[in-house]
Amino acid sequence: MHPFTRHHADSVSALGEEKLIAAIRRWLGSASPRAPFGIGDDCAVLPAARGRRLITVDPVIYGRHFDDTVPPRAVGAKLLKRNLSDLAAMGGRPTAAVLALTLDAGVSRKWLEQFYRGLAACARHYRVPIVGGDIAQADGIIAASLTLVGTASGRRIVTRTGARAGDWIYVTGRLGGSLRSGHHYRFTPRLAEGAWLARQTGVRAMMDLSDGLAKDLRALTPPGALPALLPGSLPLRPGGTVAAALGDGEDYELVFALAARTDPTGFERAWRRAFPRTRLTQIGRFVSPGNSPPGIVNLTKFHGYEHLKGSRRS
Amino acid sequence: MHPFTRHHADSVSALGEEKLIAAIRRWLGSASPRAPFGIGDDCAVLPAARGRRLITVDPVIYGRHFDDTVPPRAVGAKLLKRNLSDLAAMGGRPTAAVLALTLDAGVSRKWLEQFYRGLAACARHYRVPIVGGDIAQADGIIAASLTLVGTASGRRIVTRTGARAGDWIYVTGRLGGSLRSGHHYRFTPRLAEGAWLARQTGVRAMMDLSDGLAKDLRALTPPGALPALLPGSLPLRPGGTVAAALGDGEDYELVFALAARTDPTGFERAWRRAFPRTRLTQIGRFVSPGNSPPGIVNLTKFHGYEHLKGSRRS
Repeated sequence: MHPFTRHHADSVSALGEEKLIAAIRRWLGSASPRAPFGIGDDCAVLPAARGRRLITVDPVIYGRHFDDTVPPRAVGAKLLKRNLSDLAAMGGRPTAAVLALTLDAGVSRKWLEQFYRGLAACARHYRVPIVGGDIAQADGIIAASLTLVGTASGRRIVTRTGARAGDWIYVTGRLGGSLRSGHHYRFTPRLAEGAWLARQTGVRAMMDLSDGLAKDLRALTPPGALPALLPGSLPLRPGGTVAAALGDGEDYELVFALAARTDPTGFERAWRRAFPRTRLTQIGRFVSPGNSPPGIVNLTKFHGYEHLKGSRRS
Repeated sequence: MHPFTRHHADSVSALGEEKLIAAIRRWLGSASPRAPFGIGDDCAVLPAARGRRLITVDPVIYGRHFDDTVPPRAVGAKLLKRNLSDLAAMGGRPTAAVLALTLDAGVSRKWLEQFYRGLAACARHYRVPIVGGDIAQADGIIAASLTLVGTASGRRIVTRTGARAGDWIYVTGRLGGSLRSGHHYRFTPRLAEGAWLARQTGVRAMMDLSDGLAKDLRALTPPGALPALLPGSLPLRPGGTVAAALGDGEDYELVFALAARTDPTGFERAWRRAFPRTRLTQIGRFVSPGNSPPGIVNLTKFHGYEHLKGSRRS
C-alpha cells in the first residue's frame, strides 16, 4: 500500500492535530493506557519495577525498512518487533514503549490507521503498553522511531562481550534472503529463547542479527580471536546462499557464544526440550589466529548492511 | 550554520558508519558511559532505581525546531532541554536518554560534531547520560528524537489533571516572542522549580508551556470550568504582546493550578525564598462559566502551535 495520498481530504493534515491524536488513541485502543500511565501528559508514568532496566531505540523509515509492498499493519508490527529482538538479545522482557513519528502532511489516514492498528495488535500480543509519543511533520518522509524499555528477565543480562577463543558459536533459526522472503517483517522476536539463554551459565555473549552475520559477528568476537565458520554449517533459508546468510541482514535471529567447557550435546538436548520448534545450529567456534581449521568462511569479503551509504555529491 | 555540505568529503556519508559511530562516541565523551551502560550493545543497561519512573519523547527537526540561524551546539542542547522541560512539569529528575537520529547523507560532519558536542555538554550539566541511540539515513532531513527516562523527585508526581474551579493559575518566567528572541533554544528547563512545586500540596496540576498558553491551558482546565486570565497580568518578554504570550509557543515555562484554599501570599513568599531569580506570576483563576469576571482574555481567538499544518495538495 502506497502511504501517500493525492487527495488532501484523505491526508493526515486534513484531520488536524487534535483529531489526529484522538484517532491515534482510538487506533491504539487498549494498547495505550490512560494518562498519566499512557499518552496525554508531559511524561508517562511507569510503575516501579525491581532490578536493572534495559532500553533500546530503533526506527522504521519509508524507503529503508519498508516500501509499498509491505502492508502498513506489518510496518507497525515490525517497528516493535525490531526493538523486541534487541531486548531478546540481552535476555530481557518488555515494560513499555514510546513512539516518535515524523511524517509528511500528505500521508494517507488509511495508511496511518493500519500502521497504528498493526502496532497495537503487536503491542497487545507481547504485552507492551505504548505509553507515549510525539508526532511531527517533515516533508517527504515517514519515519517512526520506537524506544523500548524493559527489565532483565532473570538475574543475568547477557551482553555482546564475554566470548573467549574456543567457544562454540550458535545461531537460532535460518539466515539470508530476509527481504526477498518477507521475513524482515514476518519474523518472531526470540524473546523466550533469549530469556532462556540468559539463564544458561554456558552462554557467555549474545546479540541479535540485524546487519548480516559477517558484520554482526565482529562485535561478538573476543579480542585476538577470529570466528571460524564452516560454510556447510550455516542454516540457510530455502533457496538461500551462504553469501545471503552472511551479508543480507534483517535476520532478527540470535547469535551467541557457548563456553568451550560446555557439552554441546547436552546443551542442544536441553534446547530442543525448551524450544522444539526453533532451530538451533552450531555454526563454528572462535579460534586463535594460529588454530584456524581449513575451509572456513572468509568473512572479510562480506560487509553487511551499511547504515550510511550516501549518494555521492561530488 | 547550514547543516548540509556540497563537498562529499566533508559529509557524514564520506565517513562511513563505523567511523561515524566512533566519532559520535568521541564527541559525546563522558556524557556516554561504556557499554552495557551506554552505547554499544543491543540495549543499554540502566541501574535499578526506586519508585515510579517517567518517560517522555520529543524531537528537533530541521525547518521546524531549528534553522541555519541556530548554532548546532544549541540544537543539541535544545533537544535535551525540551525533554527536561516535560520532566520538570511532572516534578521529575532525569535518569538517562537515548537518541534516534535520521539524517541526509549530505549533512556536514562539522555540523553534526557541534550538535553532539552541544548535546554532550548539556547532558553533563544536567547529569543525564546518553546511553543509546540509532542513526539512520533519509533524504533531505535532519530529525533527532530523544527519549528521556527519569524518576519522581519526591513522593508525588503532578499531572495535568486535578485543577478545580476557583484554583489560582500561575506561570514561571516570561512568555511570548520565543522564536524572535532565541529563547526557544536558550531557555533553562525548570527542573528545580518543578521538583519544588511537586512537593507543595497546594499545587494540584502542572504542565510545561510548549504550544502557547491559550492552547496548553485547555489541558489544565477542569471540566465545566474555564480559565479567567486578566490581560494585564501576563508576564511578557520585553517588547512582547499579549497575543504573542498566548499563541507563540516554545516558552518552556511551567503553568500550574494552586488550590483555592491556599494563601497565595504565603505561597509566593516561600517561592521567592526558594527561587529568588525565577519570576512567578499569578495570571488568573479557573472559574465556573457563570462566575467569569469582566475584562478577561478571550482565549478562543488563539489557537497556539499546530503540529500538523500540511501544505494543501488539492
